Amino acid sequence: MTFVLVGGSTATATIDGISAAGANPALTYHTPAVDLELVTYGRPVFSDILPMSPTGCPTPALITRGVRNLLGFETVAIEAGLAVDTAAPTISVGDSPGADIREAEAVPDAEELFDRASAVGRALSEERVFIGESVPGGTTTALGVMRALGEPYGVSSSLPENPLGRKAEVVEAGLESSAVGYGDAAGDPLEAVRLVGDPVMPTVMGVAAGALDSGTAVTLAGGTQMVAAAALLRHLGVEADLSLATTVFVDEDTEDLQDATDALDIDLTVTDPRFDQTDHVAMRQYCQGEAKEGVGMGVHWRSQQNVRPR
Amino acid sequence: MTFVLVGGSTATATIDGISAAGANPALTYHTPAVDLELVTYGRPVFSDILPMSPTGCPTPALITRGVRNLLGFETVAIEAGLAVDTAAPTISVGDSPGADIREAEAVPDAEELFDRASAVGRALSEERVFIGESVPGGTTTALGVMRALGEPYGVSSSLPENPLGRKAEVVEAGLESSAVGYGDAAGDPLEAVRLVGDPVMPTVMGVAAGALDSGTAVTLAGGTQMVAAAALLRHLGVEADLSLATTVFVDEDTEDLQDATDALDIDLTVTDPRFDQTDHVAMRQYCQGEAKEGVGMGVHWRSQQNVRPR
Repeated sequence: MTFVLVGGSTATATIDGISAAGANPALTYHTPAVDLELVTYGRPVFSDILPMSPTGCPTPALITRGVRNLLGFETVAIEAGLAVDTAAPTISVGDSPGADIREAEAVPDAEELFDRASAVGRALSEERVFIGESVPGGTTTALGVMRALGEPYGVSSSLPENPLGRKAEVVEAGLESSAVGYGDAAGDPLEAVRLVGDPVMPTVMGVAAGALDSGTAVTLAGGTQMVAAAALLRHLGVEADLSLATTVFVDEDTEDLQDATDALDIDLTVTDPRFDQTDHVAMRQYCQGEAKEGVGMGVHWRSQQNVRPR
Repeated sequence: MTFVLVGGSTATATIDGISAAGANPALTYHTPAVDLELVTYGRPVFSDILPMSPTGCPTPALITRGVRNLLGFETVAIEAGLAVDTAAPTISVGDSPGADIREAEAVPDAEELFDRASAVGRALSEERVFIGESVPGGTTTALGVMRALGEPYGVSSSLPENPLGRKAEVVEAGLESSAVGYGDAAGDPLEAVRLVGDPVMPTVMGVAAGALDSGTAVTLAGGTQMVAAAALLRHLGVEADLSLATTVFVDEDTEDLQDATDALDIDLTVTDPRFDQTDHVAMRQYCQGEAKEGVGMGVHWRSQQNVRPR
C-alpha cells in the first residue's frame, strides 16, 4: 500500500473556536507542516513544536507514525498551500494557504491544484492508495462545500464538543460573501472549492481522480472531510468505486455518516483502535472525543476484529 | 543505501557556452526539476521536456533511473532553489535559484540552506548516504568557490570540449564583482558560496555535515562539483572520512582529479559503465565526452570489475 498524505492550511482555522488542531488558533498554521515531519521522521525537524489541541491532546500524526513503524508502508506527502515550511519530502502542488472562507474567494487556484494533483495521481503506480489529510479548519470548509453542492450531511470536529453552531455561522457568512446559495455549485465541485473550500480538497480530488483514471483503487482515509472529498468527486462525475476508512470517534460524532456514505455510494469502514483498553493519557483523550481522526489514522486498524459491524 | 539527490538552479548556467545540461541555455532551468521527476517516476510529469544537451545527449538522470530500477535503492530528493516546479517529492530547503556569479552575491541564503540541509542530514538514519546533484552550470560555480577557497584544482564539463577559457573568464568576473581574491575565503566556505557559488553547494554540505554528525557515512556521487563540495566541507573543519564516486568520463576530463582528492583526503572511486560495449547512440555520446556525469550516475557501477585501478 501507499499512503498519500496531503497537508495544507486555510485561514479559516484561525477563527476562534473552529479547530483543535493546534494549541491556539495561530499555531494551527504549524500543524500540517509538522504532521508531515512526524509521519516521515518520527519527530519535528524544522521546528520544535509538537502539534496538540488546546487541552494537550497530541496530533493523530503520532499514531500514524507508530503504525507506520509497525507496518512499514510507503508514504507520499503532498503539499497544498502550507503556511510553514516542512522538512518532509513533499510533492508541492501549490504554495498558497487558503483564505478564510468568509472572503469572496477561498481557493483561487483550485483548478490548478486539481490538475497538478491529477498528474501526480496518474504517476502513482500502485494497486491501491490511501489518501489522508492534515488541514486544520478542514471540517468547516467541508461543511461549506457540502452546502454549496447541496449536500445536507453534517461534519465532525476535532473538539470534544462539536461547535456546530459556530461552524454553521462561518459557513453561512462564507456562502453569502461568495454569493453562492445552497446547491448552487451542484455539478461544479471546483467552483464550490474555489468559493468556500480549502486547498487540500482539490488536491485530494485530483490525486483520487488521477489514480482511479490509471487503474489504482482509492481509499479515502479520514472523517467527514473525506466524505466532502467523496461528494466533490461524485459531483465531478467520478463513478468509480470509492471507499472511506474512519474511526469510531468520528462515527460517534456524526449522526448521518452512514446515510452520507450510502447516498454517495461509498464503502464505509469504521475502525476502533481500542484506546479504551489503555490508560495512556493521550489515548484516553481520544476516547473523550479529542482529535478523533486526522493524518489518515482511521485506515490503520483495518483488520476484521477491530472493524465495528454496521 | 539511500541516494540523496539535490536539485537547484543558478543563472550562471544561462551564460552562453557554459553548460550542456539543456538543449539551449534557457532550458537549463528545466533540467533539475525534470531530472528529479525522471529518477522518481521514470518520466517527466509536470512538463514534456526531456533534458538533453544541444547535440541531443539525454540527461544522466535516465541512467540513474535505469540503475534504480535494477537495484531498488531509496531516493530522497532535496530542492535547493529550483526555477521550475517539479512533481517529484522533495524536501525544500530554499526557493531561490542562485544568481549569475558575476553579480555581487550569488547565494544570499547560503547559511540558511546549510542549516536546513544539516537538519535533514541529521534526520536521515542510514548507514551510508550517497549524495548526487543536478545543477546546470555547477562546474563553473565549482571553479568559482575553489578559487575563492584558494584551491588550485580544475573542473570537468558537460560539454565534449571543456570550455575552460570561458569558465575562467566568468569566474574571474565573479570574483571581481564580489571583491574576493584567490584564497580570500579560505576557512569560510559559506562565504565562498554566498559570493560565487550556487544553492546546491551549501545543501550538499549541510546534508553531508548533518549525516556525518549523526554517524551516517557519506559518499559524494559526482564529478568535480563534488570535489568542490568536499573542499568546502574540509574548509568548514569537517575531518570525517569522505568518499567520492565518479565516472571514467570525468576522470579523463580532469587531469588533477587524483591530486585534488589526495590533497583533500577523499577516497576516490572511478567507475566505468562500459558504454563502449554498446552501440546505443546515447551511450556512445557519453564515450565521446558528452554529459560525463550528473544526478549521481557515477556511484552506481561501484562493483570491483568496473572500478578502474588507479
